[in-house]
This record gives sequence, C-alpha cells and structure tokens, in this order.
Amino acid sequence: MHLIPNLRIVAKSLFILSVALIATAVIAIIYAESVLPFLYSSGIALLTGLVPFLFSKDIDINHNMTKKDASFVVSLSWILFSFFGSLPYIFSSSIPSFTNAFFESVSGFTTTGASILTDIEILPKSVLFWRSLTHWIGGIGIIVLVIVIMPTLQMGSYNLFTFESSVQEKIQPKIKSVGLRLLAIYLLLTLAEIVLLMAGKMSLFESVCHSFGTVATGGFSPKNTSIAGYSPYIQYVIAIFMLLAGVNFVIHYYIFKRNFRKIKENEELWFYLIVVFSITAILTAILYFTMGKPFEVSFRDSFFQVVSIITCTGFASTDYLLWPPIAWTIIFFAMFLGGSTGSTAGGIKMARHLVLLKNVKRFFHQLRYPNAVIQLKLNKNVISDENNRNIITFITIYLLVFAAGTIALAFDGVDGKTASSAVATCMAGIGPGIGTVGPVSNFFHLSDFAKLVLSFLMILGRLEILTLLMLFTPAFWRK
Amino acid sequence: MHLIPNLRIVAKSLFILSVALIATAVIAIIYAESVLPFLYSSGIALLTGLVPFLFSKDIDINHNMTKKDASFVVSLSWILFSFFGSLPYIFSSSIPSFTNAFFESVSGFTTTGASILTDIEILPKSVLFWRSLTHWIGGIGIIVLVIVIMPTLQMGSYNLFTFESSVQEKIQPKIKSVGLRLLAIYLLLTLAEIVLLMAGKMSLFESVCHSFGTVATGGFSPKNTSIAGYSPYIQYVIAIFMLLAGVNFVIHYYIFKRNFRKIKENEELWFYLIVVFSITAILTAILYFTMGKPFEVSFRDSFFQVVSIITCTGFASTDYLLWPPIAWTIIFFAMFLGGSTGSTAGGIKMARHLVLLKNVKRFFHQLRYPNAVIQLKLNKNVISDENNRNIITFITIYLLVFAAGTIALAFDGVDGKTASSAVATCMAGIGPGIGTVGPVSNFFHLSDFAKLVLSFLMILGRLEILTLLMLFTPAFWRK
Repeated sequence: MHLIPNLRIVAKSLFILSVALIATAVIAIIYAESVLPFLYSSGIALLTGLVPFLFSKDIDINHNMTKKDASFVVSLSWILFSFFGSLPYIFSSSIPSFTNAFFESVSGFTTTGASILTDIEILPKSVLFWRSLTHWIGGIGIIVLVIVIMPTLQMGSYNLFTFESSVQEKIQPKIKSVGLRLLAIYLLLTLAEIVLLMAGKMSLFESVCHSFGTVATGGFSPKNTSIAGYSPYIQYVIAIFMLLAGVNFVIHYYIFKRNFRKIKENEELWFYLIVVFSITAILTAILYFTMGKPFEVSFRDSFFQVVSIITCTGFASTDYLLWPPIAWTIIFFAMFLGGSTGSTAGGIKMARHLVLLKNVKRFFHQLRYPNAVIQLKLNKNVISDENNRNIITFITIYLLVFAAGTIALAFDGVDGKTASSAVATCMAGIGPGIGTVGPVSNFFHLSDFAKLVLSFLMILGRLEILTLLMLFTPAFWRK
Repeated sequence: MHLIPNLRIVAKSLFILSVALIATAVIAIIYAESVLPFLYSSGIALLTGLVPFLFSKDIDINHNMTKKDASFVVSLSWILFSFFGSLPYIFSSSIPSFTNAFFESVSGFTTTGASILTDIEILPKSVLFWRSLTHWIGGIGIIVLVIVIMPTLQMGSYNLFTFESSVQEKIQPKIKSVGLRLLAIYLLLTLAEIVLLMAGKMSLFESVCHSFGTVATGGFSPKNTSIAGYSPYIQYVIAIFMLLAGVNFVIHYYIFKRNFRKIKENEELWFYLIVVFSITAILTAILYFTMGKPFEVSFRDSFFQVVSIITCTGFASTDYLLWPPIAWTIIFFAMFLGGSTGSTAGGIKMARHLVLLKNVKRFFHQLRYPNAVIQLKLNKNVISDENNRNIITFITIYLLVFAAGTIALAFDGVDGKTASSAVATCMAGIGPGIGTVGPVSNFFHLSDFAKLVLSFLMILGRLEILTLLMLFTPAFWRK
C-alpha cells in the first residue's frame, strides 16, 4: 500500500470538508448565529490535513493505485469526515455528547438519516444546514466512488452495473470530465427540486435542506415531523425526486447523452420501477381497505413511504407504525431491497436482487435440464461466474452482518423488533426503523454501545461492506 | 415422467403406512383403547394404494428413474402419508378439525414437532404412540431420501455431503443393502435410547415415544411439559441422542465400518460440534450471569435447548421465553442453522453454512489477490462451481421463502415475532417458536389459513425445498 500518497489524498479531501464548513459559517452569518463552531471545526480539519500534505509530494498515483489504496483512502475519508463533521454539533452545544454527535455525523455522511435528536427545530439554522449538507457531500461522494473509482479499479462487480467495460475504456482518459458531469447532474437535480419545492410555498431554507436530503437519499429534515406537515404537492415532489435519486446516475448520464437504447436495455431500472410500484399497490390496497383512508391518501402515503424506504432515504410523510402490523412486515423486508446501483441509495440494491432471481430461475431450470448451459446476462452483458459468485456472496455477507448486528444490539438489551429493524435501517442507510426507533421516534434512547455499533454498520453499509471490511482481513495488512 | 410406475411406488409406500397403522392398533389393544380409528385408517390407505397397484405392472424403473420421477414420488408420498396419517386423529375424535389433524400429521411426518394440541395427556395412549411413530417413519424416510435416493439421481449437491462419487459407484449395485444398514443404525440408536431412558426410570411407553421423537429429531412428547418434568439424567440422555441424530448418518455408517479416517476428514461433523458447543457456551454464560442459575443448570438448560434447536428436534427442558431477550435472538438465528446433511435434522444445515463461509473467505482473499485461483473443498473433495452455486442459491431461496411465509402469516394478522419464528421453526422442522408459539405454548390459536401455510412450509422444508418446489415450475410439467 502507498501509505504516504494515500494520506495525501485523504488530506486533500479534508480541505474540501474545511471549505464546506466555511460555507456553513456564511449561513451562520446570514442567520446571525454563532460562526465559531464552524470556523473552529474548519480550522481543525484544515490543520489535520496540512500535516500529511506538507510532508508529502504530489505523486501521480492514478496509474499505480490499487484496490487496497482505494479501500484505505475511502474508508479513512468517510471516518474522518464523520469525526470532523461532528465537531460543529459539539462546539455549538447542539449535541454535547460525543457519541451522539458522531452518530449524527456518521448518519449524515452515510446518507442514512437516523437521528438522535429529540427536538430538531430548536437547533440553530446553521447547524441544521450543516446536518443536511453532510448528506449532500456523502451523496456525491458515493456516486463518484461507485461509478468512477470502483469500476476503474475493478473492485467488486461494479463495471457490471454502471458503465460497461467498453465504455469504461473510452471514459478512462476523460475520467475527470465524467466525474464533473455526474456532479453537474447531481447539482441540477438538487436545484430543480429546490425550485419545485419553493413553488409549493416551502421556504428557501427548508427547500435547500430537503433537497440535499432527497438527492442524497439521506432523510434528515429540519422539521420534527419530517415531511408529514407539508401539502400533498410537496409530498409528491419529494417522493418523485427520491425515486429519481434512487435511479442509477449512469441512467441520468445517458438521458443527457440522449442514449435511449441504453436506458431501454437497462434491466435494473425497470426492475426497480416494477418493485416500487408493486409494493406501493399492495400497501395502497391495505391502507384503503383496512384503514378506510381515501384512495388518494392511501396511495400517496404508500408511495411516499415505499419510495423513501426502498431508496433508503427515510423521510416520513406519515407514521407507518400506526398502519396495520402486516404493513410493518412489508416495510421491514423492503429495508433489504435498496435502490439502484450507482445511485445514492444504500442497501443490497436492485441489480443484485435481479442477479439473485436470475440464479434462482437458472437453478430450477437446471433441475429440469441438467446439461443445459445457461449464461446469466444483465443488460445484455454476460455475468461472469466470478461476478455472479461475488454478487451472491455479497448478499449473504450482508445478511450475516445483519444477524451479527442484531445479536450485538440484543446483547445490549434492545428488544428484537427494534434491534433487527435498527440494524437493517442503518446498514441500508434508510433512517427510521420499527419498534422504538420508528419514524416519529429517534435513536437517542439507545446506549452508547448500540450507537457505536450502528455508526459502524452505517459506514460499513455505505461503503458497500467490502471496502471497509477488507481493512479487517489479515491479508490486507500483509506485505 | 413415468406416471404409472411412479404411482405404483407411491402405492407400495402406502402399504407400509397401512402396516404401521395396524401396528398402532396392536398398541390400542394392549391399552384397551379403541382399535377402530387405526383399522379404518389402515383400510383406507390400503384400498387407496390397491387401485394403482392392481392396475399396473412391476416395472424395473431403477435404471430409468429421473429426477422428475423422484420428486413426484417423494412429494406425493409425503403429502399422502400426512393425509392418511391424520385420519386416526379425526376418527378417534382426538383432533376433530381436519386442518388441525392435518397440521399435526404433517408436523409428525416432517419430524417438525409443532403441535396444535392444548392438552396432550388426555389423548389415548395409542394416538400418542401413532403421533410419535409418524416422526420415526418420517425420520428414516428422509435419511433414505438424502443418502440413497438423491445422490444416486444426482439431485442437488448431495453426493458432496454424503458418500463421495467414488463410493457412490461402489454402493450403486448394493443400494438396498446400504439402505438396510442405515435402517439398522436407526433402529439401534432408537433401542439404545429406549434402554437408557428406562434405566432413568422412564416408563416403557414414554421411553419409546421420546426415542422415536429424538432419533427422528421430531420433538413430539407424550407429556404436556415436554422434557421439563424429567430428571437431569434423562435430559442429558435425550440431549446426547439429539446430538447424535443430528450427525450425518454416513458418519454412523463409517463408525460401524471403523473407517475413522473418513470421520476425521469430515469437516461438517467438526463444524457442527464447534457450533453447538460455542452457542452452548455463550448461552450458559448468559443464564449463569444474568439469571443466577447454578452453573450445572445453566449448562444443562443451554445445552439441551441449543441441541434441540440446531438439530431441529424441538423438545424443551425449560421455557426459553423466560430467559433474557438476547437469548431469544440467539435462538431465533439458531433456527436457520440446522443439523448435518444426511441426518434427520432439517433447516439449511451445517455443510451449506460451511460452504457459504468458505465462499466468504475466498471473497475476501480474492479482493486482495484478484488473480488467485482458489478451489473450494469440502472433506478434501473439490466443490464444483455448479455445486457451489447451487448451495448458495439454496440458502437464498430458503431465505426468500422465509420472507414470503412471514409476510403471508403477517397478512393473516399474526404479530411479527410469532410470524417470523413460526415460519422459521416450521421450515426447519424444529417445533417451538417465539412469541405466542413458544415452547410451553402451541399452534392451536392460529387460523386455518396460517396452519395450511405452515403445513406447506413444513413439507417444503423437509423435502429440501427443491424436491417439492420443482413440481410448481412450468418446466416440470412440460413434455
């Protein structure tokens, strides 16, 4: 591993964090709030970054960068961002406890949206802005990681999900310009949502915060009641933007390129839409027939919550714990779905489920025709045996970590329903769970131990598990 | 598919059931109870079998038998055994409702042990004997299926788990003698347990019933309190025989063959023992430190329940719902373990988990060494890519069915904890669950719909899922 060059990259990323904190200080000035928490935090991040930066030279490691380097850089960056990002909460006394502030910061940068805050609205506006900004930074970070960095380094099976190898080779030389285009799309989505929310009479501040939380599929809201207090128009706008944010950004890229053939061929996109609308239809029927809500309300509530859970955003337009228990069960299992790969959504994700279903189909087909050779394909590309194995193994590792996490929380005395849903919601980066961590509740009452376990699981899930878990294998540290 | 020859085999198997019912009639005579329920049931099974038997000729299909034939015969036999096996409950008015009687019968033949009886001890002794005998018949049925039939027909990956292909070829000509030897081992284990239980002052009747329930890893007890009312000696005897019944019967075969090298090399055996004793150690510590039970009691209670759950027996020596919630969580996840392949235990089973862990290990190894070619091995034999894929796909199908079953029960208004554990316990063939279907409770209060769903899942799980599910694929019925 190239330790010094890696630390230099991490240092550079800290400068970005430092700038983001300065930008938040400007917000504090506008609202006549204390700028010191942000200036201090910015200074500390800057100074921490300066040390490795000054003592290293700019080496071009683009051509030497290994998977190990990338795992190390990405994991360390996410952990340091979460650490320095928690400082404004502490310095502003908004969240005095370090564990709580760290949890909130991890939840922000991992675009989870699980909160320990019992009263959100008493916080300074600048702190709330920072909280939403952490989502936005985390969101663009994960898009660049999954679409640009991981396929380039052939980590996991991401070239299967994003740009095909042929396109990969073409974009390789212009990797920066692809990154910039993705950033432009991300910005455009954010701006479009801000405009549409303001058109629905939401204030600029709330529009910006909610847009950050939407396009990053984060879920932090500056309001205690999340999206529940807003008009149906606002709820539909946010639901549709969550749905868009859960689409592979490569699709958005193709839309701008007007490459509609690629979009038509993208199986994950259609699978994602079918799943979202099927579950919405089932829940709508349940709400309509068992709770006697008007049809439009049943549909809107179902659609909003289903999109919010599947895209791993976590905004709530209603408290689903007041729905019949069958709805909770569906929501619980939906927590294992996840949006599309190459989106800001977390979880197992649609492409992996699709590959899994293709395996199941082949399994039954081969019971009947044992000698048939059936090649699995995704988006018309053959899935290699190794990629296929990696995808299924990823899902099983995900479920093993889920089981281990649930047991860890249960050891801490958390009841089974809360423990299992808290782990599922944090691993997938959703936000609300079931039991005592439902959509109108929060994670404040959990112990420090539980919060640290969940913080770890949020980062683990956000970094697609393997990136972080790799650092814990002995092979990683061997020369 | 060879429909007529297949029906002839099913007909022959019904004659065995008919004989078993006659044997139970003898028990009824001994206890001066009504013999009619058993004679009627026996007659009906006999007559039903006679029709296809008389209208078909004895064809040697050993050499033409396909996977389709085997799936059809096995699935139909298990369903018909369950159906005719429920008649004595109905005719004796012990269980007047058909759904309840069918559930109890399915639970018997699938060696599950989940019961709808609220008071077991008021039933005639002959009915209780029949109930335990259904376990015993189901147990030997599954051993012959998994060790003899499935590897011969190369269904699934069973040749990987039981006799290796080289041995397969050798035993192919003497397939009947291997089957008879397995039956002899099964009988011997049953007799040994009866003797040891009687040495602990258990009555002959109870000893026989409990031994049937143990070697078949069934779990029906003729006592309302299961094994809780017996001495520590009895509890240890039953625990050890459950542990033995959860061992691959190929291992027992090798013990008689004095082939200790094969036993030493059998990774599943050691993995099974390590898992059982590790979880026992954790639970012992929990009970000892949080409940203040004496150490021996903590160990005995933990050991008994862990073995009972992992081997999918379901006997209870204590009510684990009185343990701290963390213990339930561990027990819940333990329901997905299962004993060894080629044993009477159900569930996913140790060999599959072992292969899964080997995949996880390879996954991390390949992150580090992308070009390394790592062949997975089990018991020193290479696992082919196809077998490997089938094993992992089996696990994921298992979990998908679990999720679907839980949602089905939740739709019926069953709470999440009860629904998920009822599905997990029935699919694995364990017996007791968590929530309202705990070890001192039963399945009586569930709706007919839920009981039929669970009955289906018990048969599905017992027949290693694919055997039964295959019948539901369109490819199966195509010419």
